[in-house]
Amino acid sequence: MGEYKAPLADILFAFNDVMKMPEHYASLGYEDATQDLTDAVIEEGAKFAERELSPLNQSGDTEGCTLTDGVVTTPTGFKAAYDIYVENGWPSLSHSPKYGGQGLPESLGIVGSEMYGTANWSWAMYPGLSHGAMRTLVAHGTEEQRELYLTRLISGEWTGTMCLTEPHCGTDLGLLRTRATPQEDGSYKITGNKIFISAGEHDMAENIIHIVLARLPDAPEGVKGISLFIVPKFNVGSDGVKGERNGVVCGSLEHKMGIHGNATAALNFDDATGYLIGPANEGLKCMFTFMNTARIGTAIQGVAHAEWGFQNSLTYAKDRLQMRSLTGDKAPDKEADPIIVHPDVRRMLLTQKAVAEGGRMFIYYLSQQNDLTHESKDEATAEHADHLLQFLTPVAKAFLTEIGYESANLGMQCFGGHGYIHEWGMEQNVRDARISMMYEGTTGIQALDFVGRKLLMNKGESFKIFGAVVNDFLKESSGSAAKEFRWPLRKMMWEWKYVTLRLMAASAKDREMVGAASVDYLMYSGYIIMAYLWARSAMIAGQKLEAGEGDAAFYQAKLDTARFYYAKLLPRTRSLKATILSGPSTLMAMEEKNFQF
Amino acid sequence: MGEYKAPLADILFAFNDVMKMPEHYASLGYEDATQDLTDAVIEEGAKFAERELSPLNQSGDTEGCTLTDGVVTTPTGFKAAYDIYVENGWPSLSHSPKYGGQGLPESLGIVGSEMYGTANWSWAMYPGLSHGAMRTLVAHGTEEQRELYLTRLISGEWTGTMCLTEPHCGTDLGLLRTRATPQEDGSYKITGNKIFISAGEHDMAENIIHIVLARLPDAPEGVKGISLFIVPKFNVGSDGVKGERNGVVCGSLEHKMGIHGNATAALNFDDATGYLIGPANEGLKCMFTFMNTARIGTAIQGVAHAEWGFQNSLTYAKDRLQMRSLTGDKAPDKEADPIIVHPDVRRMLLTQKAVAEGGRMFIYYLSQQNDLTHESKDEATAEHADHLLQFLTPVAKAFLTEIGYESANLGMQCFGGHGYIHEWGMEQNVRDARISMMYEGTTGIQALDFVGRKLLMNKGESFKIFGAVVNDFLKESSGSAAKEFRWPLRKMMWEWKYVTLRLMAASAKDREMVGAASVDYLMYSGYIIMAYLWARSAMIAGQKLEAGEGDAAFYQAKLDTARFYYAKLLPRTRSLKATILSGPSTLMAMEEKNFQF
Repeated sequence: MGEYKAPLADILFAFNDVMKMPEHYASLGYEDATQDLTDAVIEEGAKFAERELSPLNQSGDTEGCTLTDGVVTTPTGFKAAYDIYVENGWPSLSHSPKYGGQGLPESLGIVGSEMYGTANWSWAMYPGLSHGAMRTLVAHGTEEQRELYLTRLISGEWTGTMCLTEPHCGTDLGLLRTRATPQEDGSYKITGNKIFISAGEHDMAENIIHIVLARLPDAPEGVKGISLFIVPKFNVGSDGVKGERNGVVCGSLEHKMGIHGNATAALNFDDATGYLIGPANEGLKCMFTFMNTARIGTAIQGVAHAEWGFQNSLTYAKDRLQMRSLTGDKAPDKEADPIIVHPDVRRMLLTQKAVAEGGRMFIYYLSQQNDLTHESKDEATAEHADHLLQFLTPVAKAFLTEIGYESANLGMQCFGGHGYIHEWGMEQNVRDARISMMYEGTTGIQALDFVGRKLLMNKGESFKIFGAVVNDFLKESSGSAAKEFRWPLRKMMWEWKYVTLRLMAASAKDREMVGAASVDYLMYSGYIIMAYLWARSAMIAGQKLEAGEGDAAFYQAKLDTARFYYAKLLPRTRSLKATILSGPSTLMAMEEKNFQF
Repeated sequence: MGEYKAPLADILFAFNDVMKMPEHYASLGYEDATQDLTDAVIEEGAKFAERELSPLNQSGDTEGCTLTDGVVTTPTGFKAAYDIYVENGWPSLSHSPKYGGQGLPESLGIVGSEMYGTANWSWAMYPGLSHGAMRTLVAHGTEEQRELYLTRLISGEWTGTMCLTEPHCGTDLGLLRTRATPQEDGSYKITGNKIFISAGEHDMAENIIHIVLARLPDAPEGVKGISLFIVPKFNVGSDGVKGERNGVVCGSLEHKMGIHGNATAALNFDDATGYLIGPANEGLKCMFTFMNTARIGTAIQGVAHAEWGFQNSLTYAKDRLQMRSLTGDKAPDKEADPIIVHPDVRRMLLTQKAVAEGGRMFIYYLSQQNDLTHESKDEATAEHADHLLQFLTPVAKAFLTEIGYESANLGMQCFGGHGYIHEWGMEQNVRDARISMMYEGTTGIQALDFVGRKLLMNKGESFKIFGAVVNDFLKESSGSAAKEFRWPLRKMMWEWKYVTLRLMAASAKDREMVGAASVDYLMYSGYIIMAYLWARSAMIAGQKLEAGEGDAAFYQAKLDTARFYYAKLLPRTRSLKATILSGPSTLMAMEEKNFQF
């Protein structure tokens, strides 16, 4: 029953006005990526998401994927939608013309990823995983490997996967057991069991290129003995022609809470032919080079479910008549008022709205830093952007998926008991959203990366760099709206610094402080980062209003949402500050045997 | 895969040591309800839950209920378990001997409700709904109605339902349309459509007694024109013999996110024969007399899912090996440490534990006030208890189900990606928990009841009465543990009073303040009420430790959990205080048309 309408007004505002992407593209030398072109690309992407993907969202959930005699069938319509996606050239959008790509910026592709993902997350995961495989080949493949595999992934003819997890190891990849035995012809025989492989087997493309983590015979133990391999579902001749089936089969599909339309496969590799990518034993390091984009890809899921839940609960809140406003009848001609008049329903709607729109800015901001990191010709600019990208990515992944899940639940809550019924789609939105806090590194793991690697190991340097970005904004911001948000934001930045210094000092004394405070500190930081983005957005809305440009109602809504964010969501930092500073003792005191009697 | 083991040590501690139920029963004249007897009843209930209900929890979810030609089939084993339940005499436990009951206190039955519900919430809803119907008949039925229907509900031969919701009205029962037309023989013909009727149709008992809200022909509009009717599935002769099928049929079963084992029926009443209970047009008032117990029944669901998630994630956290502790290897002989060594995993486990055990005390405390309200011969005592019951019940319902759902999600999170897979049962625990914040009045509705009726209309009197209870505890508490918690609790009580006065003053000026602050204020109050209960529990644990009585490890764990609660959960009040006081303006500012562009 639920529907998706791409929020183009907001997307274009965040893209063009807040992030000034056309200027950013010009500065990177993307001559074709003018605003006329990027607007048109985004509008076409919106049509594809609305027309082809949204109608398959609920049916895909109900139907799911099936495995029969080793063959996985995706839900009705998924393959046809993928064929249109390929025909329209979407897979090649942000890839190099050298391998058949259109050479547009990665960040423009991200706008599409959000729209496809919001319309139908399960479907969008198939091209999403391909993208990960493509990035691996771009970064670490040989020229021959790129010619052979990358070109066909870019064309969309084939898709790709990332095969990391094994039954006994997910977070702790150092434990992995899949073996790679060298062959005389330079290839390897791969043997082992991988689980939770998204898009791991399906009927949407002719071949699947698996990127597999495995160990060489003489590999050191732990994470320093992992290498990366290409294992195609069908072997590929040097002419690119699909050959025999390789020794990799789908043993089973997982029965999951949600994302039923995506095939989550257990893959058994039995002497499958594979090819090393990148240096031996440096597989994990190679993976890290593109893990930031993969995590941005998952962070989008938070925005997606907040946006979908928002749109559908808003429609319901305007339609559903129940009770009267406490300040007098708002629809006296009807038997009751629409529930949108009730403050608590508005609280739930505005939370979803602030998360979706704030999260969108967060994603765009990160994708802009990602562009700069990889494309800027100026070394200092690239390094500056890389600091921001490394620092903010774990926050985006964990914070946005956590508040995205909360938003999906609030969307459902607006429906009361009806939200629990499958037909409305709200419960599917919650079920689909729930995985986002676990895969691609749980919230806890993102928080350890954030505090351990991006703050402590880095001695707070990236933190300072981001602080300077906000300070520059505070100095340069102008207009009455900027004035309104300047002081509360400045105060939060001071407090953040104080809390960070306290955390760093406490962690130096007691290592348990790192894990004890990490999730709360990540969430705390997330709320402040989003406050910065809302202040930027409010400043621009205020300037437009003062200049009398554009749709005043739209800019007024921006200001209203920013004020809501500062009044109702940003204060969550108060509790988080207290729990961060309360330290690890109450977590570590209980003896393991005393948890239960 | 999940299992349930009744947490008897904690149940008996909360029941006997914290709430001193045996003394309470003696004071009410329940001579049979000695501690020997109540302990034995609780232990027998635990066995029934563990042996008969827990094994059907996952299969019931997978199988669900089916409707074929108007006949609903419950999952395999549900009826057999119900038969054992009836044979063992459980339905009659806390009902009057006059109608075949065992005459034990209602609060003792509540202990069983938690255990059955934790083992298998879907199953426990069948007797749970019966209990609601029984309470209605006890409070408002004629002697003849009680003889005819109540006796057979108490014996468990039949079950009951509560039929309130219609497609266009849930929260706003004033809008309901089901009609009752008087007949010459004093009966009524009931016509209308009811939805979301839990346990509304099934194969577990011979007859179903529906309690139905409907309108008489001359009824005033709105809530003042609703009457209450008995509508049996099979008509019943004056001799109690089951006769012809009545005009009520199950039109469909809802496809829900969870609680698949419980049949959620759409019931069509077509000239069904019904009998008025209680005075005409006072149906809603009649319902309110037992709505507190119904809400306590739903509040239990928060405890149930927190307890189930806790037990199963604790087992997993001890088994699963992943990463090393940051303070050195804890299991050097294994390939990694069990994840329970990591502070963030402990945070998730302890949150669930604190919610389950704190929630259990909350439920017992309320059920004690419920006993006193209805059973105390001293009028002042009964009135005092009624104040507490009325005031605290909406908090228990909304607060415990909200934090119970959070706990279920944390239990799932401990499993990482495995939590998303059906097999482990953690995702079912989340799906089943999700309804608890919506049915029996959403969190928003409980909050309006709490702030609107229980605080403002009552001019803060009940608030003062509860404050005096806590103050008495603070004065009388003794021992070193009491000393430790006294100051933080006292501070919170002062702050609560301050926030309450501010809220009352602001609501007098702007009625939107009520709805704007209600949910945050309810949650804020919930954390403080639970802090009081944890302080009580800690004081007793401290006294036992100082006296060298009982299992020191158990009491040490109590103290550790109380300290965790004060350090990591109670500080959530800080954010809530800020959002309560920030008022309604940022919620109400946005024009309805500006929510979306």
